[in-house]
Amino acid sequence: MLQLYFSPMACSLASRIALMEAGLDAHYHPVSLWTKTLVDDDSDFRGISPKGAVPVLVLENGERLTESAAVLQYIADAKPERGLAPPPGDVDRYRLQEWLSFIGTEIHKAFLFPTFWYKDDGSLAKPRARIVQTLSVPSAHLTDREFLVGHRFTVADAHLAWALLLLRPAGVDIAQWPSLAAYLERMQARPIVREAIATEMALRKTMPVSPA
Amino acid sequence: MLQLYFSPMACSLASRIALMEAGLDAHYHPVSLWTKTLVDDDSDFRGISPKGAVPVLVLENGERLTESAAVLQYIADAKPERGLAPPPGDVDRYRLQEWLSFIGTEIHKAFLFPTFWYKDDGSLAKPRARIVQTLSVPSAHLTDREFLVGHRFTVADAHLAWALLLLRPAGVDIAQWPSLAAYLERMQARPIVREAIATEMALRKTMPVSPA
Ligand SMILES: N[C@@H](CCC(=O)N[C@@H](CS)C(=O)NCC(=O)O)C(=O)O
Ligand SMILES: N[C@@H](CCC(=O)N[C@@H](CS)C(=O)NCC(=O)O)C(=O)O
Repeated sequence: MLQLYFSPMACSLASRIALMEAGLDAHYHPVSLWTKTLVDDDSDFRGISPKGAVPVLVLENGERLTESAAVLQYIADAKPERGLAPPPGDVDRYRLQEWLSFIGTEIHKAFLFPTFWYKDDGSLAKPRARIVQTLSVPSAHLTDREFLVGHRFTVADAHLAWALLLLRPAGVDIAQWPSLAAYLERMQARPIVREAIATEMALRKTMPVSPA
Repeated sequence: MLQLYFSPMACSLASRIALMEAGLDAHYHPVSLWTKTLVDDDSDFRGISPKGAVPVLVLENGERLTESAAVLQYIADAKPERGLAPPPGDVDRYRLQEWLSFIGTEIHKAFLFPTFWYKDDGSLAKPRARIVQTLSVPSAHLTDREFLVGHRFTVADAHLAWALLLLRPAGVDIAQWPSLAAYLERMQARPIVREAIATEMALRKTMPVSPA
């Protein structure tokens, strides 16, 4: 069985959504990101991954895979019949990789990450100014589309839905991009997305809040 | 013919190296990133890509692909016989995606990007403190390996070689990680990598310096 190291409402939420949309059973290990310990036994999370970051997916053969873009594609390819990623060789597969990279670099690492981790040093003016231009890209793309890639839900949507969810606690009101607000509503109307969020919000109450 | 929008010594260098290692002819368009204009005719680069960032690869069908992780995989797959990426379906393909994501998020977007673009606001202490832990990850991995993935040069190596090259002007001395310093030397000893760098360093003298 696959195993996922996650922290409630951290970027690993996208991997949980992908696993559930794929219909894959998995064992979920909560991690406390501030202390870098496993919630279950207080052991050192860096023993699982020296990066000290979620998601970490433990494959059937015991190998550990990190980085959302890789983990999400692995999960999608494990159940190709669910269509969570265009098949390799399809030009849309590169569009999926393009969106995974954009979300991981420009939204997550350039904005959400410093906002939640560096919050006390008054250095956030530039990332904050930049996020407006950044969000105009998916906003324009989603004006006349239901999903990021092709005509169905993919793991790129799981990734973007997570990032958009975190924008509000990061102080960005997505109502200024109606296409993004409508998209997030559509995503949250998916039963699995709703269930994944409810599970993590409930867990979150029982442990120290983790940042993006 | 493929076309690449690039800026000398910016992250698009990895895409140039990939194209050359693949033996693919391409037309190269220099971009001035500060002014967001094409060097050839002063026209607006945002007309090519609203992101205003390089690399942009124009495919044979005229579509434009952005984001290094996607562009690099597209180039590798265009010449599978060169082995610049493990084939789709191979578990090493996810390792390639893992490294592309790590370099694009944790080295480029979390450190090089703010260092070159936000340099005047005194907000770089935390990214600078963090890069030491970040670089320990590839440093440990490369202690007993020649390449990032498998036993041959892949586009992930093109990406990391570029990032390591930029660390010096960003004020990080990689001599403190002997495995990274040795790796960068090995990469720079490849004739194509050397030629790509020489081409861009020469071009750089003729135009305003672009940041990461
Ligand atoms: N590039 C990684 C980023 C992973 C990441 O930043 N995860 C956050 C939670 S959203 C984390 O675990 N941070 C803890 C840390 O960086 O110390 C990815 O895309 O998966
Ligand atoms: N996430 C993108 C980042 C691209 C990027 O930041 N490119 C830089 C040059 S290394 C750039 O063009 N910056 C101009 C800008 O962001 O305004 C990728 O991985 O390709």
